[in-house]
Amino acid sequence: MRVQRADMRVCSMARPSDTSELEALLDSGEVNAEDVVALVGKTEGTGLHDDSGRELADLKLREAFASRLGIHRDDVPERVSLVLSGGCYGVISPHVTVVTRAWVEVAKAQLPGEPRLVIGRAFSGPILAEEIGRMGQIRTVAEAVRAALGDAGLDDSADVHCVMVKGPSLSPRSIREAEARGQSVVTRDLSVGVSGAMCYANDGAALGVALALGEVPEAALRDDVVRRDWSLYSAVATTSAGGENQHAEVLVLGNRAPSLSELRVGHGVIRDPIDTGGVKDALRSAGLAFDCCPSPADQARIVQVFAKLIVPGTDQLRGRRITLRDDLTAYASAKAVGGALVASVTGDPRVMVSGGEQNSHQGPPDGSPVAAVVRVG
Amino acid sequence: MRVQRADMRVCSMARPSDTSELEALLDSGEVNAEDVVALVGKTEGTGLHDDSGRELADLKLREAFASRLGIHRDDVPERVSLVLSGGCYGVISPHVTVVTRAWVEVAKAQLPGEPRLVIGRAFSGPILAEEIGRMGQIRTVAEAVRAALGDAGLDDSADVHCVMVKGPSLSPRSIREAEARGQSVVTRDLSVGVSGAMCYANDGAALGVALALGEVPEAALRDDVVRRDWSLYSAVATTSAGGENQHAEVLVLGNRAPSLSELRVGHGVIRDPIDTGGVKDALRSAGLAFDCCPSPADQARIVQVFAKLIVPGTDQLRGRRITLRDDLTAYASAKAVGGALVASVTGDPRVMVSGGEQNSHQGPPDGSPVAAVVRVG
Amino acid sequence: MRVQRADMRVCSMARPSDTSELEALLDSGEVNAEDVVALVGKTEGTGLHDDSGRELADLKLREAFASRLGIHRDDVPERVSLVLSGGCYGVISPHVTVVTRAWVEVAKAQLPGEPRLVIGRAFSGPILAEEIGRMGQIRTVAEAVRAALGDAGLDDSADVHCVMVKGPSLSPRSIREAEARGQSVVTRDLSVGVSGAMCYANDGAALGVALALGEVPEAALRDDVVRRDWSLYSAVATTSAGGENQHAEVLVLGNRAPSLSELRVGHGVIRDPIDTGGVKDALRSAGLAFDCCPSPADQARIVQVFAKLIVPGTDQLRGRRITLRDDLTAYASAKAVGGALVASVTGDPRVMVSGGEQNSHQGPPDGSPVAAVVRVG
Amino acid sequence: MRVQRADMRVCSMARPSDTSELEALLDSGEVNAEDVVALVGKTEGTGLHDDSGRELADLKLREAFASRLGIHRDDVPERVSLVLSGGCYGVISPHVTVVTRAWVEVAKAQLPGEPRLVIGRAFSGPILAEEIGRMGQIRTVAEAVRAALGDAGLDDSADVHCVMVKGPSLSPRSIREAEARGQSVVTRDLSVGVSGAMCYANDGAALGVALALGEVPEAALRDDVVRRDWSLYSAVATTSAGGENQHAEVLVLGNRAPSLSELRVGHGVIRDPIDTGGVKDALRSAGLAFDCCPSPADQARIVQVFAKLIVPGTDQLRGRRITLRDDLTAYASAKAVGGALVASVTGDPRVMVSGGEQNSHQGPPDGSPVAAVVRVG
Repeated sequence: MRVQRADMRVCSMARPSDTSELEALLDSGEVNAEDVVALVGKTEGTGLHDDSGRELADLKLREAFASRLGIHRDDVPERVSLVLSGGCYGVISPHVTVVTRAWVEVAKAQLPGEPRLVIGRAFSGPILAEEIGRMGQIRTVAEAVRAALGDAGLDDSADVHCVMVKGPSLSPRSIREAEARGQSVVTRDLSVGVSGAMCYANDGAALGVALALGEVPEAALRDDVVRRDWSLYSAVATTSAGGENQHAEVLVLGNRAPSLSELRVGHGVIRDPIDTGGVKDALRSAGLAFDCCPSPADQARIVQVFAKLIVPGTDQLRGRRITLRDDLTAYASAKAVGGALVASVTGDPRVMVSGGEQNSHQGPPDGSPVAAVVRVG
Repeated sequence: MRVQRADMRVCSMARPSDTSELEALLDSGEVNAEDVVALVGKTEGTGLHDDSGRELADLKLREAFASRLGIHRDDVPERVSLVLSGGCYGVISPHVTVVTRAWVEVAKAQLPGEPRLVIGRAFSGPILAEEIGRMGQIRTVAEAVRAALGDAGLDDSADVHCVMVKGPSLSPRSIREAEARGQSVVTRDLSVGVSGAMCYANDGAALGVALALGEVPEAALRDDVVRRDWSLYSAVATTSAGGENQHAEVLVLGNRAPSLSELRVGHGVIRDPIDTGGVKDALRSAGLAFDCCPSPADQARIVQVFAKLIVPGTDQLRGRRITLRDDLTAYASAKAVGGALVASVTGDPRVMVSGGEQNSHQGPPDGSPVAAVVRVG
Repeated sequence: MRVQRADMRVCSMARPSDTSELEALLDSGEVNAEDVVALVGKTEGTGLHDDSGRELADLKLREAFASRLGIHRDDVPERVSLVLSGGCYGVISPHVTVVTRAWVEVAKAQLPGEPRLVIGRAFSGPILAEEIGRMGQIRTVAEAVRAALGDAGLDDSADVHCVMVKGPSLSPRSIREAEARGQSVVTRDLSVGVSGAMCYANDGAALGVALALGEVPEAALRDDVVRRDWSLYSAVATTSAGGENQHAEVLVLGNRAPSLSELRVGHGVIRDPIDTGGVKDALRSAGLAFDCCPSPADQARIVQVFAKLIVPGTDQLRGRRITLRDDLTAYASAKAVGGALVASVTGDPRVMVSGGEQNSHQGPPDGSPVAAVVRVG
Repeated sequence: MRVQRADMRVCSMARPSDTSELEALLDSGEVNAEDVVALVGKTEGTGLHDDSGRELADLKLREAFASRLGIHRDDVPERVSLVLSGGCYGVISPHVTVVTRAWVEVAKAQLPGEPRLVIGRAFSGPILAEEIGRMGQIRTVAEAVRAALGDAGLDDSADVHCVMVKGPSLSPRSIREAEARGQSVVTRDLSVGVSGAMCYANDGAALGVALALGEVPEAALRDDVVRRDWSLYSAVATTSAGGENQHAEVLVLGNRAPSLSELRVGHGVIRDPIDTGGVKDALRSAGLAFDCCPSPADQARIVQVFAKLIVPGTDQLRGRRITLRDDLTAYASAKAVGGALVASVTGDPRVMVSGGEQNSHQGPPDGSPVAAVVRVG
């Protein structure tokens, strides 16, 4: 029987251009470059749209695989999803999580009975500028999510715990071209602000996930609910967008049997920026049993936590006024808060915490999605 | 028998100039303006040396008391210590903690047998520019700390859990004047950076506390240990400095019997920026009994947490590299991290978390001091 | 014959709370507090919406006049317009320009024949949240501008060189109240960004000026031209907005005869962020004759320059790409650029340069308004 | 006769990784890759020590040459000096200046009689951590400058107008190793602040230039004058430093005859941050004759301006207080001011303006060096 064996390894990076730990892992034979399906990481930098740290890391990571796969560095993204988030404010340690998937032939008797991590990956068709932040993007992303679920062998949405989408945003050029075609775009604001293209692009993708997983019925979706009706959301979507992308790329993490993985994934919801409960829920959902806080032995079994820290659209936190929403540097502070929140539970600063956008269809109103992967095998 | 009754109330501030909640408290009769000995608060702003939010809040708070005490607003600081820290990055909610101390005549039989919160306050003599960051400052601050201990009635250092010192720093003018007197100053760097006057001034004060409390023997102290020998520190000092101050002002929180307070203070040490254990230690030290994490009922008894989040002088956190030390915006990120750390335990964003300086004699190497006040009565 | 005598004096401020130079001027008798109609200044701080430096300076300036006018500090704004702009990035020296207007009885023969500076001032009626950035605001501001022109005795728009408007912006509360009344608002984005309320409020006011001065015909104005049709603009409007204001306040500077002022005002247009030509045009328009650059003797006659530096809505500057438009810190960089541009011509860092908003109806597309006041008497 | 023909071309960059304009220039045959001796550019990014934009541009520029020179990208720096400065705040347009030098055989009669641009290049021997900011570095850099002068054929210091030095700074590792060798370092502050290693490294290099050119006599130099005695300086040095460098690399621009270049270089001194006079002096020194301001025809002959904008060590500018020295974001504001100053004179935003350090031996006290290259042929 042919079965997935998914695994994850976390490598530190001493600079955005440092791939030495990753390369040692590949060269040691512990990880086979052919098996790597995704690199998900945090790079130091501003985390804003023009963050060169992210681009530099992307380039060097592609080179590390190009030489080992015998392909051109520009062709690596077809083989390996590169999901990098800039901005290591506070305690977030720069790193990359190496996600592998091998197919192994195994006798049925040797399979673990319980569901284990499986991974799916898919690309969407092209998404036009005029579709971003609207039904066009939502439907196209949803289709790609369904394809990724199929690729993973996941047929029950309840088994899906993390859906990462990296897709297109608007750019001066794509807006110009759309308008030349006689089309309008959802916003001409290219900032990372609350009315900007990045938020619309991320949120269109999030609703695409919600649609594919049945978290939101298609009938509830229209162009004008995007970034307006916050009751519509996905609890497992974490999305990012860049003006340079033409398609959406989807990476799905779920559990199913049979799977030969030693890992399990789970998810929770960070209800507000000081809610460690959401992080703990994700760990427990992934199969880590602990009472109040994970012990060092428990922490040693945590492979990675993937979280967003969305800036709430309110200035109230548990009845007190905070300034985060109205702070121009919220993009940085939110990551610092999110990183501290997660790492204070896991004990490891190499956490994948992105975010900083204000309000989102990623997670419930004023909340944020969090997924955890735990070694259970 | 004449006994202290110390209390604390926390008031939100809607802007740095908003004292309405505080004024309502005074006008309701719940708090008597005559009993207020200190206002300890967080104001929104940059938290850097030229943070006008702090100055504006200071002025408005003084006005609130001037009218009620029948004195000029410039004379309020003699009666009430104003310890304000700017910078509410992340989840820190702007607020002011109103610290009161009344003397009540009470029969011995009515006294609680166990030690409760007492408060002491003292001013130092003048500290010259050439003394800052050197033995002169250390000795003068130590003397004022001893006076404050006496004012509180505390004679055992083990009963002291929090010593706040607000004192002088260097300024262009004070340096010029010192040099005109033929004196040198410890640094001519007036930045908030690692070699700057603010760090020297804060650390001279911290060593003054350590000396007064016997945490460091006098024989171990010399000019050249300041900001060099990090093994010397106070676990209970939180200090701040401004070029406009001529004297140090000391506020001491400790426990003793007899005291009619319903509160108790305790302290812990935040060993690294993701160590919630230090916050929990402080809460337990103050008398809050809980197993792993405080429950909502436990949290309701927490009156306030006073913490610094010092930026470690290393780029390593639990064996992983972080960028905080080398980040120009560490002053903001450190507060965001510290606020999240404390509030995730207490459940309340109105936490008194300052800090952001790199390395300090406040707390052990790479650690930070934290004190907690809990309602036990 | 009763004639205006308008004057301006510039006072340095050593901190946002420092009014000593202004107070010395009042106490010396050189300036009569009763004659002061406006204080126009730059205060150090972020220049963002929550800049406490501006609020602190505002309070201290009001106090300086309250004691001298024998009124409450809260009543000073009825007598004196306070137009403060935060953010002294780069070379801008914190200062306040004291604008006075006295009425003197004089024989016709003694009057200078040529037009000289006159000043007008007016308040608008209330502007509702739903009117901001729309025709409601535009018409109400236009009416107030006309009243200020009348107050100044200016009846020809060609004589008007500078119209400052300080008016309301949206706030969470005013939006909530408008929506409770069943009204919509132009934007719910409260950021200082390109889609935010501050830009809409500033631009509605600018179009109000343009309407009153006939720079834009009423027929060309509709709700949906605001922040869309950049061909509509005022060359002399500089506007600011705050959520705390209910009315617009207008200060008009123009030239007319008879006037006993020793000053003259003029204006120009800064066509792009490196165009010193606009500054020179303003100086010449005010009556300063010079060939290429003003000499030190010419510079000594310059009283003040009032300019905005609007961030162009393009990334092209003279055919080269610049990053200003897409820079999150453009609000700071634009002021640094504008200050350097103006001060390099005038030789004086005490320049009134505000701005930093992206695109505006203040000045032509990608340009900025600039006015200059010169001593000619 | 074998004679130098030096030239310069400026290429825009659409992103730090965009080398398309440069590559088109090389591929068109207009510039021969073999002739390129230096790439001097501005890249967008923070301009702080961890600016990945600079590293990314460096890598892509090396690749552009590696393929054309048939060498490995890591070997390009031996052939081509890469002097990149991050931070395009305000109006500075990202670009790279391509500096070429060819040797041509020419009959004496065909030579221009007047001095024209010549270029020299040299590497120093290794500079140890303990030598940085001290006499060791000064002497080693001076030796390399002399070698570069020899390489250029310049034997009179008066003909030298610009000396760029890129050299080592301190790093945690180099400090650790130096201390393990029993050596001390000039500072352990690794920030970009006024007491930090970057300033010491830049200033040691500047004094090395001053020593080599005779601007400062050797007898005046001692370890303890560095960053203390500001009367010692070079008017033509612009230096940069990075912890990754082991050697200093020197690029010298001067004029001599015979030279076949169509260009001439000159220099001036920017006396304070609003002094356009220094920029004009540099242009005139390079041979551009104009009265007050260069006309568009004059501007068309300007090839490039190389300037620093040093933050003055005083808060006074022409008798007025400015906040630049004490502003944490001075590194950004100084570049915005410098860029506006230069581009307002040249009319071109593609200016090479770096700086932002506080006080320097680059340029006189409170001033900055500026060099200009003009087409005269």
